[in-house]
Amino acid sequence: MSLVITTYDWVPDFAIGYVRDLRPRWACEEAGLHYAIDTTSVREKTPAHFARQPFGQVPILRDGDLSVFESGAILLYLGERSDALLPREPGPRAETQQWLIASLNTLEPVVMALALARIFDKDAQAAERALPRLQERLRQLEGVMAGRDFIAAGRFTIADIMLTEVLRIAASLGVLADYPALTAYVARMMARPAFQRAHAAQIAHFAKAA
Amino acid sequence: MSLVITTYDWVPDFAIGYVRDLRPRWACEEAGLHYAIDTTSVREKTPAHFARQPFGQVPILRDGDLSVFESGAILLYLGERSDALLPREPGPRAETQQWLIASLNTLEPVVMALALARIFDKDAQAAERALPRLQERLRQLEGVMAGRDFIAAGRFTIADIMLTEVLRIAASLGVLADYPALTAYVARMMARPAFQRAHAAQIAHFAKAA
Repeated sequence: MSLVITTYDWVPDFAIGYVRDLRPRWACEEAGLHYAIDTTSVREKTPAHFARQPFGQVPILRDGDLSVFESGAILLYLGERSDALLPREPGPRAETQQWLIASLNTLEPVVMALALARIFDKDAQAAERALPRLQERLRQLEGVMAGRDFIAAGRFTIADIMLTEVLRIAASLGVLADYPALTAYVARMMARPAFQRAHAAQIAHFAKAA
Repeated sequence: MSLVITTYDWVPDFAIGYVRDLRPRWACEEAGLHYAIDTTSVREKTPAHFARQPFGQVPILRDGDLSVFESGAILLYLGERSDALLPREPGPRAETQQWLIASLNTLEPVVMALALARIFDKDAQAAERALPRLQERLRQLEGVMAGRDFIAAGRFTIADIMLTEVLRIAASLGVLADYPALTAYVARMMARPAFQRAHAAQIAHFAKAA
């Protein structure tokens, strides 16, 4: 039974390359799991979409009868399918889950607060408050990354997918350049053939949709 | 070997009952796992604290040689110790992880954005933008909860702990009362003896510290 990743049928240009379907695409590419892409309308969200995803978000993964949403939960699910993604031993497994969750709950909210203030709300005062909050987290993370090849477990895991994807948003806002270890880490992760295939596939998908 | 949960030595009055050590405390109480409490200074964060938790946050769980942070990752780790917390079958397991992550990545950021705008930044304009974003998510979640006893897997799981804890913050901001299914859900969860023991223990801990 093949995996199916649901994404939008269209996104604005600035989002291409950053849509969260990249996270499960990349995981599947790393693990050698075959997957197909399905689309749902972003401009007129359907009752069928809300029935599968109550917040109207993507991605959603289908695996036979099972449907699961939230990119973090999809990565945990795919991790159970392949130890190329999630170690089986309790210590490395817990460390991987720890950094997956830290990316989603400690880092992504401060990155998105800056993006929201600058791009959507165009509120200079809110952006000025959001920037140092993000910089503090990046400075702390820079100290962790110095001397590490991967964020968890001493090898590639789903935590690297999630952390890279969150840091790429920070990079797109121009705030990553002050952190050399984080900048080098993101460059290393983006050089992985599995990332390149997933990224190219997302760009091709939305280019075709345009 | 006993589990040790690290929390702060002190918090301001408004935070008592809401410190994130409640999440692993409650999980341990549900699963009948013995745990001890350890403290770290919140007013002068130590190098030893940052060495275990690079962002200077709590809770941190110790299990023998293993140290893991992020309340979501700790709940996943405790879930491996007890299927009272996390089902073993792939479908219910994925659904539990989905709602744990949705609580942390889709709900908590919009709740905290309102808390930040109102309480810390005292920015009425930012609060006015944050409120409808939170209300939209609560309205969508209200539709999910109507007719369910638990958020995932048809029974109590770590997803209920995480969702309840995030909704309790929303309730403390006065925005939950418009959602009867969510209000009833939080009341049901808070009536559980394991919640009550964990909550009382946190209050006693910080009362002693004061």
